[in-house]
Amino acid sequence: MSRELEEFREFREAMNDRILDSGNREIKRFFALDTRAYEDGALPVKTKELLGLTASMVLRCDDCITYHVVRCKEEGVTRAEFMDAFNVALVVGGSIVIPHLRRAVARLDELDGLAGSDGDDADAVTEGDATDAGG
Amino acid sequence: MSRELEEFREFREAMNDRILDSGNREIKRFFALDTRAYEDGALPVKTKELLGLTASMVLRCDDCITYHVVRCKEEGVTRAEFMDAFNVALVVGGSIVIPHLRRAVARLDELDGLAGSDGDDADAVTEGDATDAGG
Amino acid sequence: MSRELEEFREFREAMNDRILDSGNREIKRFFALDTRAYEDGALPVKTKELLGLTASMVLRCDDCITYHVVRCKEEGVTRAEFMDAFNVALVVGGSIVIPHLRRAVARLDELDGLAGSDGDDADAVTEGDATDAGG
Amino acid sequence: MSRELEEFREFREAMNDRILDSGNREIKRFFALDTRAYEDGALPVKTKELLGLTASMVLRCDDCITYHVVRCKEEGVTRAEFMDAFNVALVVGGSIVIPHLRRAVARLDELDGLAGSDGDDADAVTEGDATDAGG
Amino acid sequence: MSRELEEFREFREAMNDRILDSGNREIKRFFALDTRAYEDGALPVKTKELLGLTASMVLRCDDCITYHVVRCKEEGVTRAEFMDAFNVALVVGGSIVIPHLRRAVARLDELDGLAGSDGDDADAVTEGDATDAGG
Amino acid sequence: MSRELEEFREFREAMNDRILDSGNREIKRFFALDTRAYEDGALPVKTKELLGLTASMVLRCDDCITYHVVRCKEEGVTRAEFMDAFNVALVVGGSIVIPHLRRAVARLDELDGLAGSDGDDADAVTEGDATDAGG
Repeated sequence: MSRELEEFREFREAMNDRILDSGNREIKRFFALDTRAYEDGALPVKTKELLGLTASMVLRCDDCITYHVVRCKEEGVTRAEFMDAFNVALVVGGSIVIPHLRRAVARLDELDGLAGSDGDDADAVTEGDATDAGG
Repeated sequence: MSRELEEFREFREAMNDRILDSGNREIKRFFALDTRAYEDGALPVKTKELLGLTASMVLRCDDCITYHVVRCKEEGVTRAEFMDAFNVALVVGGSIVIPHLRRAVARLDELDGLAGSDGDDADAVTEGDATDAGG
Repeated sequence: MSRELEEFREFREAMNDRILDSGNREIKRFFALDTRAYEDGALPVKTKELLGLTASMVLRCDDCITYHVVRCKEEGVTRAEFMDAFNVALVVGGSIVIPHLRRAVARLDELDGLAGSDGDDADAVTEGDATDAGG
Repeated sequence: MSRELEEFREFREAMNDRILDSGNREIKRFFALDTRAYEDGALPVKTKELLGLTASMVLRCDDCITYHVVRCKEEGVTRAEFMDAFNVALVVGGSIVIPHLRRAVARLDELDGLAGSDGDDADAVTEGDATDAGG
Repeated sequence: MSRELEEFREFREAMNDRILDSGNREIKRFFALDTRAYEDGALPVKTKELLGLTASMVLRCDDCITYHVVRCKEEGVTRAEFMDAFNVALVVGGSIVIPHLRRAVARLDELDGLAGSDGDDADAVTEGDATDAGG
Repeated sequence: MSRELEEFREFREAMNDRILDSGNREIKRFFALDTRAYEDGALPVKTKELLGLTASMVLRCDDCITYHVVRCKEEGVTRAEFMDAFNVALVVGGSIVIPHLRRAVARLDELDGLAGSDGDDADAVTEGDATDAGG
């Protein structure tokens, strides 16, 4: 796991603990419902994680996208399936989704051990005619 | 098909025609991309329609929800699968999604030939302790 | 209660029953959490209902606004306090909130037995220099 | 002006009066700022109204869209210019904008005295292969 | 005050000065209205700040949340009251609010001189079974 | 060009290449439509870029704002015209837009070779009575 993903995971877990230890029972219950929403049911886990990923993209929440990209990978979602789900999010949510799409693909590349996360190795891939896609 | 769904379909088709005949080629291409996003690919049509439905719910667009509820029915999505997808949308999007969830279930009931669409027959089902769920 | 508010209440209760009877336990739990969020706690009910109202306005959900306007009235929120909360929502959310503000004030007028709900008696109040406020 | 546009205008003016007479000075000032934002400045009125229209479309507020469509017409915006602005809103905001685009074009048709507003005369234009554009 | 909060405050003040000195009188007036919306009125300052905080959470703006968390602290909002307001925002806005809730609690911890801001000291609190709350 | 803008541009181009090389033709077509939406048509490029900028501000996407600020500069948009467009976005979208407005002005200052980007030189401009504008 890359340094960035590791930091995300650490902060996320530390603050989740702080929140769950705060003594507010309703918030604790909400977190439990959140977990259960993605468990096996009438729809399988993989489909539910794809739903969570697409919902997170159109609502444009990078942390939520990162979480569901990781979970989808664990459920065996292929690169082509990811791109299909990203395309639905892009068409439904518009070009405003593109910056989050870029970061989602960078996260996928990190998980796959490919270069290019967050522009550090950007030079390697920038020669060429990048499209001028707005957003 | 109920009167309301029929009116929705008629207005939708009439205005789509007006838009596609307007001479703006880019909008025409966007509509084509929109259609293609839900065609069979790395992910099957049913999954893609469920993605579209969930995205429409968290973005709270009743017309889009109606469209994808109809398409999901055509793809064989069961009531239990609908409720699973609705639950993901509810947890991700919050109680602000509930009014749209009510209308989505009313649409499903219409498609299934059940009473209750838009409160007309509401009396038949209102005796009892309705929850005070906000939203 | 006006005809329109009555219809809103009937449809809301009928569909809530349909949803709660659907057999999806997670959605049922979400509805319970939703109810509990506005119960007396570290913050009093009145403050929590004002939070729910303001959140509903900036997220622009008319049904949610209607629900919380009714509940705030029951908790003794005065017209001046409503306007203060509306102003916070307006400043935070912008002119895009104005159409919902208009409908919220119409709802309040209905609850107070004043004329003007939904423009039926609009003629009585339209002579004069209505501002051109956009939105 | 069509019956529907007339009703919109009446309700809007009546409730604006109610709001401005409520005694809340801050809201009154917000309405004044809202009016001034579209007055001639470094950018001309027509451009500002197009900005307001596009912002209203991507935020998906039908009342705001109707208001700015009417104002843009008054400023001489042509049908082709409208479609260009609609296309920017569609690309930025995604297919979730389409239902509002349909209603915006129906409003434009009303203003231009064309048939088709709200599906009443829909039959006249529906023969043909309506695209299946989602949303 | 922590380094991070200090940087936020400095950038915020510097850019506010730049904006207010830009010669655009309308923007200046908007900033004045924004300030006044939280002043004592029919509703007390503390309630208004809680409204601003909750609105900022459901609209998911970290800078706005930070600002209102600081102001609420100054108005004597207790940790339990914060958690109550956070819970309303969480239920209304859904799990998409959770990443902002985590950062809000981290900000609160900073203001209270507790460890854990932004994961630097995360190790101290991560042992244990962090929930898998999505988002 | 400043270091920060340079990094933004590099990451953007590198990831656009990754996305366009992914083999998903629909996403590629979406990017093409996105580019074309801002080309000369019934409305001139400058107006279209201002529409894109305002839409990006009310939808609160920093990367999209940065992109359109750069493009507007290239099309000759003056500082006073920028402030007019920012004001429309501020009034339509509310105080929640302010943090993005601050970053947009910082970007503009970078492009104009002025101090103040991202608070590094903030001390130079902070003496004085910064407004308490929320958000």
